Amino acid sequence: MADQQAQTGEDIRPTDIPAIRWEEPPEGPVLVLLDQTRLPAEEVELVCTDASALVEAIRSLAVRGAPLLGIAGAYGVALAAVRGFDVDEAAKALQSARPTAVNLSVGVRRAQSAHRAALARSGEPEDAAAAALAAARALHREDAEASVRMAEHGLALLDELLPGGGHRILTHCNTGSLVSGGEGTAFAVALHAHRAGRLRRLWVDETRPLLQGARLTAYEAARSGMSYTLLTDNAAGSLFAAGEVDAVLIGADRIAADGSVANKVGSYPLAVLARYHHVPLIVVAPVTTVDPDTPDGAAIEVEQRPGYEVTEVTVPQGAAAGAVGGVPVAPLGTQAYNPAFDVTPPELVTAIVTEEGAVSPVTAEGLAELFERSRRATVD
Amino acid sequence: MADQQAQTGEDIRPTDIPAIRWEEPPEGPVLVLLDQTRLPAEEVELVCTDASALVEAIRSLAVRGAPLLGIAGAYGVALAAVRGFDVDEAAKALQSARPTAVNLSVGVRRAQSAHRAALARSGEPEDAAAAALAAARALHREDAEASVRMAEHGLALLDELLPGGGHRILTHCNTGSLVSGGEGTAFAVALHAHRAGRLRRLWVDETRPLLQGARLTAYEAARSGMSYTLLTDNAAGSLFAAGEVDAVLIGADRIAADGSVANKVGSYPLAVLARYHHVPLIVVAPVTTVDPDTPDGAAIEVEQRPGYEVTEVTVPQGAAAGAVGGVPVAPLGTQAYNPAFDVTPPELVTAIVTEEGAVSPVTAEGLAELFERSRRATVD
Repeated sequence: MADQQAQTGEDIRPTDIPAIRWEEPPEGPVLVLLDQTRLPAEEVELVCTDASALVEAIRSLAVRGAPLLGIAGAYGVALAAVRGFDVDEAAKALQSARPTAVNLSVGVRRAQSAHRAALARSGEPEDAAAAALAAARALHREDAEASVRMAEHGLALLDELLPGGGHRILTHCNTGSLVSGGEGTAFAVALHAHRAGRLRRLWVDETRPLLQGARLTAYEAARSGMSYTLLTDNAAGSLFAAGEVDAVLIGADRIAADGSVANKVGSYPLAVLARYHHVPLIVVAPVTTVDPDTPDGAAIEVEQRPGYEVTEVTVPQGAAAGAVGGVPVAPLGTQAYNPAFDVTPPELVTAIVTEEGAVSPVTAEGLAELFERSRRATVD
Repeated sequence: MADQQAQTGEDIRPTDIPAIRWEEPPEGPVLVLLDQTRLPAEEVELVCTDASALVEAIRSLAVRGAPLLGIAGAYGVALAAVRGFDVDEAAKALQSARPTAVNLSVGVRRAQSAHRAALARSGEPEDAAAAALAAARALHREDAEASVRMAEHGLALLDELLPGGGHRILTHCNTGSLVSGGEGTAFAVALHAHRAGRLRRLWVDETRPLLQGARLTAYEAARSGMSYTLLTDNAAGSLFAAGEVDAVLIGADRIAADGSVANKVGSYPLAVLARYHHVPLIVVAPVTTVDPDTPDGAAIEVEQRPGYEVTEVTVPQGAAAGAVGGVPVAPLGTQAYNPAFDVTPPELVTAIVTEEGAVSPVTAEGLAELFERSRRATVD
């Protein structure tokens, strides 16, 4: 079950509520999420006391973003274990809550394996639950550390590609601290550039249909004090044509073994525009986003979301103002095509930046090497 | 002054209210517009009794679309003349109501010239006013006829480019009877294909920020009974990648002498995607859209619209439901980049289809020839 607690009133005023946290109040452990569907109008927390509440939060996009989904999945398994629910059943439900982001199932499996191993070792459910929670916390911490390293590698690459400095970066969707245990992926690079005085402007695609750019990235950019400007997704073409974009930085939800990148719908058109205008497109994602079991772009399952996300506009309204909800903008009965993601082929990606370094040009060999390096580092 | 009359209630049910009509009730002549900002939720008419009400309607996009703006501009001059206002002053205000669509000033100048010539001839203001009105009516009629011929030329070109039939056409913004004295430009071609049984599907870009695709094109498509599917602008890339688009059909707000096409923002990214995927991009527009005084794309003034169109979502709400208005979706203080149009260079345009025929490839010579042919036809 999920309860909602309103944190602030009418103002759009950013605070420092983390996207996810594990808490242990006297009533028993809970997973507390910042409800991202209510931002930036309201900072409301969603308290999950079991895995099915978390599955619902994942489906409704209250919690979202590839790295954060991995962390949430791991905590979800820990929650089931600590509260004495069937761990394998919870893991199965969590893994299938959304199909595209590979990090979700990686996170779930990691906590599940830790749970299984500890149970085999000690036979005590409490030990197994503690092991699952320790695995979730470790993933959370590692993701924060990976953010720092991605930001460093990403900025180094930007400085190399664009020696003039004063970077004007275009980004799509939301890839900051709301999707991560740390400061995120693509956004973390922009933030690092901003702190180093080398970000001239962040161009923020609004990212239809759910407006994660307008609602979340603009919120994170405003918090950080960087110069940013919002635009409709289809106005990016004019920016490229005017020579106003030095680089495109995006995250990824799944990277196939050949380097094909599934990311928020609208990424592929940016990749085509970037190529046409000789502007680098850089994908920033932790190594866990690379899925060696997905051979290529065609093998990536792209989630199709309900048409009402397009035919209705969901406006973030305060609970005080009444219903949160869809106002129809198209005639009744209108069908919509609403893929959540698109796939960019490796030949359109200038570089993939991970916490282990960058791969450029993007090749299956380069990615495999990176993946192995990361695996060895984890095992060591 | 403008009055509003609600025609229908809550239902989204298309009727046959024309986009524009001249009426002569006992209180004096008026120009009646279908308020396009209220569609598809409500069919509300806006009654203009003077040119300044029309200027306001043009600025607020209650009346919009390149060909219709020309007709509206001509009627606006006639309205000033018939009601005894200063015609040159009205013409000046109307011409500068929106900067990009050349048709607006072409229509205004045509009625103004007719007025001036008649005044010089007879010296009677009544004769001059009648001449201005006759010029507006002639433009209205010619535009309807031009629609028919554009639809025929456009479908012939489609059939030639795509001999298989069963066309799957992607369109952007709104180009049907709501922008025209007849059935429109690009939409008229799709409609003609539909009636001929050769349209498999119309893909309708929602067209942010004002959602003319979702609100207006979907409304016109639903009226006509064609198969159509709505999508966010940034999902078009996935359709191209999946091979689901046979041709892109768009209108134009101004075509420079070199064949550069200014059209609704988002057209240029479609042109780049179409080229990348070897899909033809066809621009459909009356010859009046070609402006021989604008040498090239760089010389086209692109209207920048207010940022709140992006930072707030304006949801079409019934008058009964309360205020029509902007709900903030981005943090307060967010700046937005909001060009109304973008410019597609001639090398990305497969053909320009006009009522006088098609130009393909698009060259300055081809356009000049077409323009001369049209001028001779008008003079003859």
